[in-house]
Amino acid sequence: MFLPRPRSLVRDQGELVLDHSTTLGAPPALAGVLAWLQGALRPATGLPFATAEAATIQLSLADELEPEAYQLSVGSHVTICGGSPAGVFYGCQALLQLLPPAIYRRAPVSGQRWSLPAVQVDDAPRFGWRGVMLDVARHFLPKHDVLRFLDLMAAHRLNTLHWHLTDDQGWRCEIRRYPRLTEVGAWRRESQVGAGRDASGDGRPHGGYYTQDDVREIVAYAAERFITIVPEIESPGHVQAALAAYPSLGVTGQALEVWTRWGISRDVLNIEESTVDFFTGVLDEVLELFPSRYIGVGGDECPRDQWRADPRTRERMAELGTDDPQSWFIRRLDDHLTAAGRRSFGWDELLEGSPGPGTAIASWRGSTGTVAAARRGHDVVACPDDLVYLDYRQSELPDEPIPVSIPLAVADVYAFDPVPAELTPDEARHVLGGQANVWTEHADSPRTIDYLVFPRLCAVAEALWSSAERDFPDFDRRLRHHLARLDALGVEYRHADGPRPWQRRPGIPGRPESREERAAHVAGLVANIQVS
Amino acid sequence: MFLPRPRSLVRDQGELVLDHSTTLGAPPALAGVLAWLQGALRPATGLPFATAEAATIQLSLADELEPEAYQLSVGSHVTICGGSPAGVFYGCQALLQLLPPAIYRRAPVSGQRWSLPAVQVDDAPRFGWRGVMLDVARHFLPKHDVLRFLDLMAAHRLNTLHWHLTDDQGWRCEIRRYPRLTEVGAWRRESQVGAGRDASGDGRPHGGYYTQDDVREIVAYAAERFITIVPEIESPGHVQAALAAYPSLGVTGQALEVWTRWGISRDVLNIEESTVDFFTGVLDEVLELFPSRYIGVGGDECPRDQWRADPRTRERMAELGTDDPQSWFIRRLDDHLTAAGRRSFGWDELLEGSPGPGTAIASWRGSTGTVAAARRGHDVVACPDDLVYLDYRQSELPDEPIPVSIPLAVADVYAFDPVPAELTPDEARHVLGGQANVWTEHADSPRTIDYLVFPRLCAVAEALWSSAERDFPDFDRRLRHHLARLDALGVEYRHADGPRPWQRRPGIPGRPESREERAAHVAGLVANIQVS
Repeated sequence: MFLPRPRSLVRDQGELVLDHSTTLGAPPALAGVLAWLQGALRPATGLPFATAEAATIQLSLADELEPEAYQLSVGSHVTICGGSPAGVFYGCQALLQLLPPAIYRRAPVSGQRWSLPAVQVDDAPRFGWRGVMLDVARHFLPKHDVLRFLDLMAAHRLNTLHWHLTDDQGWRCEIRRYPRLTEVGAWRRESQVGAGRDASGDGRPHGGYYTQDDVREIVAYAAERFITIVPEIESPGHVQAALAAYPSLGVTGQALEVWTRWGISRDVLNIEESTVDFFTGVLDEVLELFPSRYIGVGGDECPRDQWRADPRTRERMAELGTDDPQSWFIRRLDDHLTAAGRRSFGWDELLEGSPGPGTAIASWRGSTGTVAAARRGHDVVACPDDLVYLDYRQSELPDEPIPVSIPLAVADVYAFDPVPAELTPDEARHVLGGQANVWTEHADSPRTIDYLVFPRLCAVAEALWSSAERDFPDFDRRLRHHLARLDALGVEYRHADGPRPWQRRPGIPGRPESREERAAHVAGLVANIQVS
Repeated sequence: MFLPRPRSLVRDQGELVLDHSTTLGAPPALAGVLAWLQGALRPATGLPFATAEAATIQLSLADELEPEAYQLSVGSHVTICGGSPAGVFYGCQALLQLLPPAIYRRAPVSGQRWSLPAVQVDDAPRFGWRGVMLDVARHFLPKHDVLRFLDLMAAHRLNTLHWHLTDDQGWRCEIRRYPRLTEVGAWRRESQVGAGRDASGDGRPHGGYYTQDDVREIVAYAAERFITIVPEIESPGHVQAALAAYPSLGVTGQALEVWTRWGISRDVLNIEESTVDFFTGVLDEVLELFPSRYIGVGGDECPRDQWRADPRTRERMAELGTDDPQSWFIRRLDDHLTAAGRRSFGWDELLEGSPGPGTAIASWRGSTGTVAAARRGHDVVACPDDLVYLDYRQSELPDEPIPVSIPLAVADVYAFDPVPAELTPDEARHVLGGQANVWTEHADSPRTIDYLVFPRLCAVAEALWSSAERDFPDFDRRLRHHLARLDALGVEYRHADGPRPWQRRPGIPGRPESREERAAHVAGLVANIQVS
C-alpha cells in the first residue's frame, strides 16, 4: 500500500478507526507538523481532531533515529516517531497512505470509514536530496499552482525543489534593484509551438512573475512541508530575457526581445566587471529570499561563438588570464556565494572547467557528470536525461503529445539509481541524491505539467527514498492503488493506455529520437569532461 | 477597509494584536466555522490559535439576528455573533479584512504585526442570492481551480454558484447511467479562437470532466463556505455535446461531433418521451449529487428551425396539443423536479411561454425578465448582460483581449441593482438577488478567468451584499486596498490601467458592440415576453 516502499513493514491483526473522539498530540517542537496533520486529516474526514495530552495519534521525536527516519505504529493507538520534525512529517505522510484514497480530497464525499490497519513501519530515505527541477521560465506557473506542486511533492516525500527561475524565454523573480528584469523580462511576444526550426509561433503573449512576497510565501510554504527550494538564476548563457531588459549585459549590446523560440539563444553575458556586479547584486536579493545552502547559477549549454568573435572579450580574457569565460564568470559568482556562506550549484558543463571546490553539480548528461564530480570531490545530484527528464515522451505511441527525445515509460524511470555502479563507496558519498527535471517548453499549462509529471514522478520518488532494490511488478501493483490517491487529488496524470483524447496535440511537431541517437549525442557532449 | 461595505461601522480607540496566546472559541454548533477560521488564520500567521473556553476570539449564535447577519466587535477581545453559522462565517470574513492583506497568504512572509483595530460592526446582506454563474462547459476548469474559485467567492461573501455544466461544446459531469455523456461529450476536437464566423480553430483538443466523487467533494467544500451550488443541465437547446454522445436524442438523429465553434448550435432535442426519460434520468443523478433547492434546466437561446422543419415533431406537437416544444420539454422537467421537492431554474426565455408555477428565472436580457417574472409571481435572479456579464470587454482600449460586446468597467458593474425601479415593494420580494455570469468561450485558462472576473466581481459582491446606495469614489478607495488582498491571494486581476502585456490577445477577433447596438438587439430579443 505504501509508495515509496518502506524499509520494513509488518502487518498486525486488527484496525483502528478514526472518529469524533480521535485526538492528536505532540510536544511543542512538533507544533508545525501537528498543525499540518490536522490540516491534512480534517478536510476529507470532517472530524475535529482536537489536541490532547494522551492522544489517539501521538507524534514524538527520537534522538536515536536519523533525521528523516520515522517509525509508525498502529495498534490500539497510533505513534509516529521521527528523528527530526521532517521524519515525523514523513511518518504522517505514511499514515495518510494507510487510509482510503479519499483522505486526499478537500471535503468529505460520503460516509467513508476511516480505518487504519494495524502495522509497524520502520523507514528512512536512502538519499538526502530527493528533488524535482521545475522550469517556470519557459512557461510561468501561477503561485497557487506552485503551492499545489509543493503539496504533491510532499505527498511523495520529495524534499528539494530546484526552481529554474530564469532563462532565455523569461525572468520570473522580482529583483528590486533591477526592475526591468520583470517589467521587460517577464513576458514574451509569443511562443513557439512544438519542436524544430519549422515550428510556428502562436502569436500569443506569455508571461508572469513572482513578487518577492510571493517568493517568501512559497519558500515558507515549502519549509512547512520540509522542502528546501534551491533557486536557479541562469548564467552566463540562457540569459536572453535578462539581455532584453539590460542590453549592456550582453556581448553585442544590441537590443533583443525576450526569446520566442525554444533551444539555446546565441546571446550570452559579457565578461565585464559590471556584469559580475549586476549578477552578484541579483544574487544578494536571492540570498535574502532563499535560505537554501545551495544556490543555482546555471552554467549549462552556454554557446561560445559570441565570445570568440568579439575583440573586446579576447582582450578581457588576456587581462584576466583565462581562456574560458564561462568558468571565469561562474567562478566569480561562486566566490560571492561562498563568501556569503552558501554553495553554488550548477550543471555538469561546469566540469569541463574547474568549478570552485564547494560547487555542487547537477549531472544531466547521462552518468558521466556524476562519476566525474564524485571522483573530483564535488557533491553531485544525479538527473540523467535518459532516465528522469519528465518532458521526454512517455511512449512510442503516435498520439503522445509533442513527442520529445526518447521514450521514458514509468518502468524506465523506475530503473533510475543516482549512484553509478562504477563509483566506489567512498566516491558514492558525494552523490547527494537525485532529481527529476521538468522542462516546460511544451507544457503550457498546469494540466500539461500534471500529464508529464505523473505518475512518472512517483517512480522517481521511490527510486530516491527506497533501497536500491527494484521490483517493478511490485511497484506497479502499489502504483495502481496510488493512482486512486492522485484521482482524489485531482491530478490529471497520464493513464497507462495513453493520453486521454484532450491530452493529445495532433499535428504539433516534436523531435523524437531513438535511444541510440540520444546516447551518441550525449557521448559527444560529455567527451571533454575529465572523469578524474 | 471593508468590501463589501457594512451596514454599520464604528471605529473605537485601540487595537488588539494576535499572538501566540490568542485563542479561539465557539459552541459545538459552530465547530465547522471554528475549524475554517483556524484554517484561515494559521497559514499566514504561523500562530497556533488553540481553542479555549474563554477565548480571545469568541464565536456565537444569536437568535435575534437574521440568519446571514453578524455583529463583530473588537476591543480587549473579539466577539463574532451571527444569526446562523453562515452569519458567523461572514463575521469571520470581515475579521480577516481588519488584518493586513498578508493574512490571505498561505504561509508567513515576514514579521507581520497582526493588529486588529477596535471596531463595532453590525451587518447583514441585502439579498439572499449572491451568485456567480461559472461556465465550465466551454472551457473545463480543473477541480482544484473550482475549489479556489469557491474560496474567492467566499472571501466576497457570495453564496451561490450557478454551475453551467453542459453545453454544445462539452458535458462536464459524470452520469453513471449514460457513460457516453463524458466518454464522448467531455471533449472536442478543437476550439474556435476569438469571435465571429471567420475566427479560426486552434486544432487542439480540449476536454475534461468531474467524476461524481469530484462533484461531491466540490459541493461539500462549497457548503463548508456556505455556498450553495445550483447545477445547470442545459436543454432543449445548447445540447450538441449530449447529441454527439447519443444522437437519438436529436431531431435529425444524425451523428454530430461535440461542437468546436462558439454560438448557438442549431441542433436541439427531439420531443419524444424517451428523451424526457433520458433527461429526467440525468436529473435523478444530479439530484443525488446536489442538495440545492434549485436545479438549472437551461431554456435559453433555443433555435426552433429543426422542430419547424421536422414532420415527426409537428405530428408530436399535435399529439401533445402544444405549439411550443421548448415550453413543453422544460415543463416536463419541472414536473419531475417538483415531484422530487425541488424547483426548476431557467433563463428568461422561459417567460416567452408559461413556466411551471415554482420555476425561478435567471433574467439576463436587461431587466425585462426581472420585471416580468416578478409581476407574474416567479422568483427571479437578476443577471442583466449589460451590467454583470463578466466576459464582456472591460474598456474601449484596443488591447482589451478578445473584446466582446459592450465595455463594462468596474464603475459600470458597481451600478448594478437587482431590483428594477419599476417594481413595487411587493413585486420586488420575488427578486431573490443577483449574480454575475462568467461565460468562458474566450477564457481558456484559469488565468484568463482571473482577468475577466476580478476586480469586477468585487463590485458585484458589494452590489448584492450592501445597501442600494452607491458611492463609487468610496468603493474605489476601498477597492484599491482590497487589491492588495487579491495580490496576496495570487489573483491575476485586471489592473486599472489595462491588461498586462501577457494578458493581451493581439489579432484575435472579438465582437465589440456599442451600448446602443446592444440595447437595440436585446430589445428585439425580449419583445415577446409578456411583462404582466
